[in-house]
Amino acid sequence: MKTDIEIAQEAEMMPIKNVAEQLGITEDDIELYGKYKAKISNEYYEKIKDNEDGKLILVTAINPTPAGEGKTTVTVGLGEAFGQLNKKAVIALREPSLGPCFGIKGGAAGGGYAQVVPMEDMNLHFTGDFHAITSANNLLAAMLDNSIQQGNVLNIDPNQVVWKRCVDMNDRVLRNVVVGLGRKVDGTVREDHFVITVASEIMAILCLATSYADLKERLGKVIVAYTYDGQPVTAKDVKAVGAMAALLKDAMKPNIIQTLEHTPALVHGGPFANIAHGCNSVKATKTALKMADYVITEAGFGADLGAEKFMDIKCRKAGLKPDCVVLVATVRALKYNGGVPKDQLSEENLDALKKGIVNLEKHIENLQLFGVPVVVTLNQFITDTEAEYEYIKNFCEERGCEFALAEVWAKGGEGGKALAEKVIETIENKPSNYAPLYPDDMSIKEKIETIATKIYGADGVTYSPEAEKAIANIEKMGYKEYPVCMAKNQFSFSDDKTKLGRPTGFKINIRDVYVSAGAGFVVALTGSIMTMPGLSKSPAAFGIDLTDDGKITGLF
Amino acid sequence: MKTDIEIAQEAEMMPIKNVAEQLGITEDDIELYGKYKAKISNEYYEKIKDNEDGKLILVTAINPTPAGEGKTTVTVGLGEAFGQLNKKAVIALREPSLGPCFGIKGGAAGGGYAQVVPMEDMNLHFTGDFHAITSANNLLAAMLDNSIQQGNVLNIDPNQVVWKRCVDMNDRVLRNVVVGLGRKVDGTVREDHFVITVASEIMAILCLATSYADLKERLGKVIVAYTYDGQPVTAKDVKAVGAMAALLKDAMKPNIIQTLEHTPALVHGGPFANIAHGCNSVKATKTALKMADYVITEAGFGADLGAEKFMDIKCRKAGLKPDCVVLVATVRALKYNGGVPKDQLSEENLDALKKGIVNLEKHIENLQLFGVPVVVTLNQFITDTEAEYEYIKNFCEERGCEFALAEVWAKGGEGGKALAEKVIETIENKPSNYAPLYPDDMSIKEKIETIATKIYGADGVTYSPEAEKAIANIEKMGYKEYPVCMAKNQFSFSDDKTKLGRPTGFKINIRDVYVSAGAGFVVALTGSIMTMPGLSKSPAAFGIDLTDDGKITGLF
Repeated sequence: MKTDIEIAQEAEMMPIKNVAEQLGITEDDIELYGKYKAKISNEYYEKIKDNEDGKLILVTAINPTPAGEGKTTVTVGLGEAFGQLNKKAVIALREPSLGPCFGIKGGAAGGGYAQVVPMEDMNLHFTGDFHAITSANNLLAAMLDNSIQQGNVLNIDPNQVVWKRCVDMNDRVLRNVVVGLGRKVDGTVREDHFVITVASEIMAILCLATSYADLKERLGKVIVAYTYDGQPVTAKDVKAVGAMAALLKDAMKPNIIQTLEHTPALVHGGPFANIAHGCNSVKATKTALKMADYVITEAGFGADLGAEKFMDIKCRKAGLKPDCVVLVATVRALKYNGGVPKDQLSEENLDALKKGIVNLEKHIENLQLFGVPVVVTLNQFITDTEAEYEYIKNFCEERGCEFALAEVWAKGGEGGKALAEKVIETIENKPSNYAPLYPDDMSIKEKIETIATKIYGADGVTYSPEAEKAIANIEKMGYKEYPVCMAKNQFSFSDDKTKLGRPTGFKINIRDVYVSAGAGFVVALTGSIMTMPGLSKSPAAFGIDLTDDGKITGLF
Repeated sequence: MKTDIEIAQEAEMMPIKNVAEQLGITEDDIELYGKYKAKISNEYYEKIKDNEDGKLILVTAINPTPAGEGKTTVTVGLGEAFGQLNKKAVIALREPSLGPCFGIKGGAAGGGYAQVVPMEDMNLHFTGDFHAITSANNLLAAMLDNSIQQGNVLNIDPNQVVWKRCVDMNDRVLRNVVVGLGRKVDGTVREDHFVITVASEIMAILCLATSYADLKERLGKVIVAYTYDGQPVTAKDVKAVGAMAALLKDAMKPNIIQTLEHTPALVHGGPFANIAHGCNSVKATKTALKMADYVITEAGFGADLGAEKFMDIKCRKAGLKPDCVVLVATVRALKYNGGVPKDQLSEENLDALKKGIVNLEKHIENLQLFGVPVVVTLNQFITDTEAEYEYIKNFCEERGCEFALAEVWAKGGEGGKALAEKVIETIENKPSNYAPLYPDDMSIKEKIETIATKIYGADGVTYSPEAEKAIANIEKMGYKEYPVCMAKNQFSFSDDKTKLGRPTGFKINIRDVYVSAGAGFVVALTGSIMTMPGLSKSPAAFGIDLTDDGKITGLF
């Protein structure tokens, strides 16, 4: 069987200017990065901004196995399928992070015959957006520490610096460090921490900002430290906003690439789905909606995290109205949620399937809470059986959802036609009455409790003393109106990742809370959230190579 | 008076594909990065590699004032002047480092009407080469620490890790850090250091590698640590070579941009001129030589560092033969070398000029040692006087060098025609008999002593006990044949930066020595060399901004 990179490298790509041309975009309106990648110019968005919006389709998933459910694969395949049906469709995806490419996860360009290409470029430096974010993040850090060094006129308490440096790398030794050692000229000694670039608040800001003015406004609000008397110090206070914005100028423009079947894909931004909102940029989604009749986008992790944040943060803030949700499951993940160990997921097991399908049921109910019609799809695996399909199909239809198999990994767009048809049928027949889950003016605790009880199915919420104190302080600082961004594990509805299926009788424990004032949300942490991954004993990097004639091998 | 960025932004750039076309390069042979930047494809180099080489002209300088002598300005203006004379010329420059743009130095795109454009792009992310180098450098660091973490089968001594992480930022608190704090899963605690990206050995390697095979060979040799029993551990040992090479794939291709007068400029790579060799990539220089009749390139710092390394490291290793050297002086720097304080350099002072001109004299003598004819030029300042010019001109001509004024800052190519004509005349009439200063098979100490006595004018060399030990070990490891890369301050021929002019009666003190095994040279450190700059009290970043309609301001 061919690997993803082999399939991708065998593909005959169309020059991206031709892909753009098919959408009516001239070469003047794009900025090429090589022959197969481009950025869409700000001028082009100005030209199309009064077009009518296309239909917005969100792809999300049930709680996954550790291997993931293939949301990106389905998103890409569904976009290809729209193309096969002669519909004008554009895909909107997140950019992958460089770090995990060398770790265990590999890239994030889809899989099989449902990939975006050039996959090597996208998985490595792409058009440099993440590097720009890393630079802006670290410029702010350097200017903050320099403000302390050069007389500390802002009265910054070195023990209350909250801004972290970042690298786009899985590098565990940078989780906890001490900086500023040496002589007087080498800075002030303090404890510090690095995060991976996707966890930087700059990433979330870039993905939510709608213009350069909005970008600068948001950057200015970022809280980087507190003074000795507890007052917030912002990026504006350390005079970093203009220089950071200059670094982010090109990174703000959405990137366009193509699927293996030449469907256009806007791939832009990639914030974490735990401490941030986990969706591609607002700018890309809005641009795509002006360019096409159907826009297929995805949100990170399972629907309890990704879709909830898509609805309650991204759509609320950007004024987007999704028309349909595609909920991706796999037979494997349903059995996993039914208690089958990872290494036995390939065997037919209807009992486990019946036991695990409650996870799917809860996600369907949750998505219906947002007023958006749901289509369920199964990302096909060769070990799946007909009996399993039949059972799942009936289960969905009984709950008012259309169902279709996605055979896109093996067949590309052709394998997604049935799903695309169900999506079109749903959009044409079932109105979307999208509304966020909670109003802006609820208290932060009420917002947390609404998500915990309605989405997770918890009995209630407990707060650590730190969280209580932080919430009070955040509301006092004036951030009560912000939506809440829950940082939770992706495997369980609960904050205990071993509780699979549809757990009940649990409380959500809030360990700490902080505000991402520039991004515009309050982060509530349940349990410990990893913002700097490590490399495994045998990381993917061992297998990656460059041939003497310039071909990259071993990426997956 | 207009600022550099104002002049640059008012310029009407030619689409870079048209600039390339004028050199006979089709759009298929370049990879565009927006409309005004491109990379030259590997395939194009294959097509032209059997062309006859053009003439190679090195631009270097006397020991500078802290403000610098405008080497890049002269290089760019000279390239423009060749264009004005209807000669086919290409400029080859280093890429600027992002960090200093936000610090005190500003960018490095030339100045006035002798600039390369787009200057904002070039000074910020450009085509991402430095980000790729940062990523490769830090991937190696992460894999090294991961090797220690995951059982340490290579027996690496955490106290003898020599590989440093890097950021392209002036960030003093990262000079000395402790990493790996926290729990067992957070890595092994050890002291560590960050350098700025231009100081990474990967930068030097990228600039010296001639092919992907050579790149991988060099990366594999990089020494990252020593074992408990003192054996070197390499990048190959930690299995990082393939993944690093994949990250550097596109960064290996030279970038092409243009001057304000549309002269093509290959801008590629930018290693430090102290702990590394300080020249743009061999690949860019070799490509330029195949593309044009005249190639104008520069080397970092004064000729004692930059030109010496250009001759003894870059030309020796790459088989290049320079045809002419242009030695840049300013009246200001000559007076500075004559003892005039920084704030009085604008006043005519022939006595100080006569006192300081011995600095120029020594550089002329040094360059003649390499067998290459020398043309001296003065980068014009409005405070210069005719009497000063006349004195300098006569001084040079008495020493067998042509002389011409460079008025390129104010007049662009038109102001460089006189200089270009002298250069052409020199190349046509004076044969170059280039030879490096010392043979490969000298001992490391003999090489250091040759440079110190012949180039710097020292009476001899002293070595610290560490340096003695290191040299013995490096020769034992088999690196005796490598050239020596001297890390010295740029202001004085001596290792004391206050000794200006042409100091005598001093010894060079070698503090430490190490091998850059992948780059292929032995670094000898005199005094303390800064590999991570800091930000000043009022850094340039304070003044940089992005307007709401996307224009960058305040870069200089």
